[in-house]
Amino acid sequence: MQEKFEQLQAKLRDIIDLGSAAGILGWDQNTYMPPAAAETRGHQMAIINRITHEWATSEEMGRLLDDLKPYAESLDPDSDEARMIKVAKHDYDIATRVSSEFVVEMSQVVTAAFSAWAEARAKSDFKIFEPLLEKVVDLNQRFAAFFPEVDHPYDALLDQFEPGMKTADVKAIFDGLRPQQVELIQAISEQPQVDDSFLHQPFDEKKQWEFGEEVITKFGYDWDRGRQDKAPHPFTMGVSIDDVRITTRVDPNFFNPMFFGTAHECGHALYNLGHARKYHRTLLSNGASLAVHESQSRMWENLVARSYPFWEHFYPRMQEIFPQMAGVSLDQFYKGINKVEPSLIRVEADEATYNLHIMLRLELEIALLEGKVLVKDLPEIWNAKIQEYLGLTPPNDALGVLQDVHWSYGNLGYFSTYALGNLVSAQLWEVIQKDIPDLDDQIRAGKFEGLLTWLREKIHVHGRKYEPQELVEKVTGSRIDPAAYVRYLKNKFGKIYNL
Amino acid sequence: MQEKFEQLQAKLRDIIDLGSAAGILGWDQNTYMPPAAAETRGHQMAIINRITHEWATSEEMGRLLDDLKPYAESLDPDSDEARMIKVAKHDYDIATRVSSEFVVEMSQVVTAAFSAWAEARAKSDFKIFEPLLEKVVDLNQRFAAFFPEVDHPYDALLDQFEPGMKTADVKAIFDGLRPQQVELIQAISEQPQVDDSFLHQPFDEKKQWEFGEEVITKFGYDWDRGRQDKAPHPFTMGVSIDDVRITTRVDPNFFNPMFFGTAHECGHALYNLGHARKYHRTLLSNGASLAVHESQSRMWENLVARSYPFWEHFYPRMQEIFPQMAGVSLDQFYKGINKVEPSLIRVEADEATYNLHIMLRLELEIALLEGKVLVKDLPEIWNAKIQEYLGLTPPNDALGVLQDVHWSYGNLGYFSTYALGNLVSAQLWEVIQKDIPDLDDQIRAGKFEGLLTWLREKIHVHGRKYEPQELVEKVTGSRIDPAAYVRYLKNKFGKIYNL
Repeated sequence: MQEKFEQLQAKLRDIIDLGSAAGILGWDQNTYMPPAAAETRGHQMAIINRITHEWATSEEMGRLLDDLKPYAESLDPDSDEARMIKVAKHDYDIATRVSSEFVVEMSQVVTAAFSAWAEARAKSDFKIFEPLLEKVVDLNQRFAAFFPEVDHPYDALLDQFEPGMKTADVKAIFDGLRPQQVELIQAISEQPQVDDSFLHQPFDEKKQWEFGEEVITKFGYDWDRGRQDKAPHPFTMGVSIDDVRITTRVDPNFFNPMFFGTAHECGHALYNLGHARKYHRTLLSNGASLAVHESQSRMWENLVARSYPFWEHFYPRMQEIFPQMAGVSLDQFYKGINKVEPSLIRVEADEATYNLHIMLRLELEIALLEGKVLVKDLPEIWNAKIQEYLGLTPPNDALGVLQDVHWSYGNLGYFSTYALGNLVSAQLWEVIQKDIPDLDDQIRAGKFEGLLTWLREKIHVHGRKYEPQELVEKVTGSRIDPAAYVRYLKNKFGKIYNL
Repeated sequence: MQEKFEQLQAKLRDIIDLGSAAGILGWDQNTYMPPAAAETRGHQMAIINRITHEWATSEEMGRLLDDLKPYAESLDPDSDEARMIKVAKHDYDIATRVSSEFVVEMSQVVTAAFSAWAEARAKSDFKIFEPLLEKVVDLNQRFAAFFPEVDHPYDALLDQFEPGMKTADVKAIFDGLRPQQVELIQAISEQPQVDDSFLHQPFDEKKQWEFGEEVITKFGYDWDRGRQDKAPHPFTMGVSIDDVRITTRVDPNFFNPMFFGTAHECGHALYNLGHARKYHRTLLSNGASLAVHESQSRMWENLVARSYPFWEHFYPRMQEIFPQMAGVSLDQFYKGINKVEPSLIRVEADEATYNLHIMLRLELEIALLEGKVLVKDLPEIWNAKIQEYLGLTPPNDALGVLQDVHWSYGNLGYFSTYALGNLVSAQLWEVIQKDIPDLDDQIRAGKFEGLLTWLREKIHVHGRKYEPQELVEKVTGSRIDPAAYVRYLKNKFGKIYNL
């Protein structure tokens, strides 16, 4: 059986190696690829996807997994081998449920949808994207139909990104969270507002870049196994444990995007860099889920880099690098980077309002999937919801329903992982504070080894071995739950806004 | 039959698309890849090479080519279709001659050989590379043995890079060339020497970069389909007609490497960018051979960018960008960039001595293949030959036998294409001067459209349709011949050195 297991691993290594090559192509596409090369890139990705899909759904793969079933059952269910077989079976079941025709159609629609979305957003004209979005919704409905056993068709979408997570779970979590976030935002809005105008002034691009690199070097980012480049839509590409690249964008007139974006992507990268080396070139060398991934990026971005102790250490350095900050006190700066203000754009939202952007999207996605909302009515419904949730009206669709790229990638079911990641980051943080009582002092001293070591041992090293809820429960004692996040928000913003 | 032809093209498109993905991986490896990612990259390349080799040698491919034989014979032999089938058959015959075991062994040896060579060169210790080079020689002997019908085993190696070229042809060409080059160098050495010290002084890196880009933009390099990056060993990567990237290196204290290197790589790139669009994703969207490729790069580097008319246009601009050149006259500068001086390093050699470096390598490679020289004796023999050819003795092996990367890639048979490229560039140039009587005036005015259009129509557009000798004969009326190059050298250096 050991031999069959090794055969399975060898087949998976082929898929993983070829998939990681596609990772490089994706990174290149978003960083350095010449504009005219898009068509060529499409063909390259198509052939790699075709091969990996063929391999992932091959009869031989199915036979190996069948043969290994009794062996897996004979193992400690928490052993690496048992988990590797389990994860392989999960991926195989999903891949084989979906027809080849569907895969081809999806990739065709996605190519067209991305172009249509980009044009629609540039022209702020939803009509350009509408027919493609209708196809995306239709494809997602058909995808869900490949999984008739789920409680709700949206479960099938969610499971791609959050293994084991149910729509009902997410709804329950959000239902518990929403009133408390709305109440907090309301309370904040009644207080004197924070000034963050000093963040909106010229900041030398090269200095921004170097400051960001200086900080993530202290976080523990390994430049021998990674690099940072510019990209219009920042992302982290975990090609393998030895090649984890981050990207960022620099706004010459606004401090936040580069700095907090870099901390965010570094958080993702540290997770990828921290998987157990013995998992290299196995299915376990991957994040547990998008929510767990986001818990890492949001932790470094917000719980670390938007914290007071962090800036006790770094603000003098910031003032040294950017002399224009001389007249801004640490307290003013700290409040500025934590300013709460309902806004139209999700990716620019503060910690207190961010999750509301997500809840709105989840509601709309479920309604689209259920056919209760039609694509053609989406802009109107979007705007009504934004008014209801945040008290704002988008002046155009580019700042409304067209702002996110995700649907144009063919993905429904993705957004809630962002909010879940916020919740998990706060849950973990409460445990970390117990386990490392002097954590604030360490951060105040610019030391992050304690934090990183904890994250490595508790989260990173396990890779994809555990399902997200299982992992969170193992580490925090409870499943994903909004209470810690609400405590965190109330404590942090209570102080900032004198609530 | 049209249908079978389309089936063949579809199979080839898969191979080409996957191969072009490997091109991106190769480009990344030499530009941006984090150091620790080398092992991952090895696995990615291995899986892609395995698949493409399987496809290229599949029974189905063989059957299609057999089935298409009568069809190809029924076509005009100069038609695109007939040529595509011919080239496909040529590639298939080579790929299927070589055993799979050989391919695997070669890729293993090459991975080890490159590391050993890099270490050996860094430490200037041939012994580190010796056992791997012995394997490389052995592999090349075995490769040649797969082709027992050739006149000389070296023909089999040469044919990979110069289809149709024989060792005897190359030897005859070099035999005609050598005495004339030696005589010229001797005559030059007896004249007052040229001062080029002004080229060896600080040149701002950013300005070097921008000046290089300004010049190749005028050459006609298409930034929409390409880009320029830094690489320790500059190269051009032709991924597809829409993605042709060049690389360069910048020496902050020496003008030549960046400037002439950029012109050189741009020459390669213009060739790739100029293949007929109808050949996109076919085997014909490629250079005719390495020598023809080198004829393009050397033409833009030397016949254009090291010419007097070129600097009549660009030298005032150069003096504007680099004020330190104010006291250097155009004539002094022109002589400086064309200084002839026997030197140890091939890639830094001037036009008059360059080919001697190549002839030496050809002799040694043939002797190694024939078993008349043993790897262990190579450093000693190398040094003796360099003394004989150039009157110099390398102080160490890094500046001698270890200087070139090629053998560590597993390649014997490659070097002579560089010298052949020089010859072809001069042959073409004589025809161009007849066809464009005011060529010098155009260059003097900074206009290169006339030259580029000629190259496009006569050379670039044909891609790999014609064999190199066939193409050269078609365009110049004679096969590859040293006479034009000798005329060019004597004329140019006769003026510079008052011969």
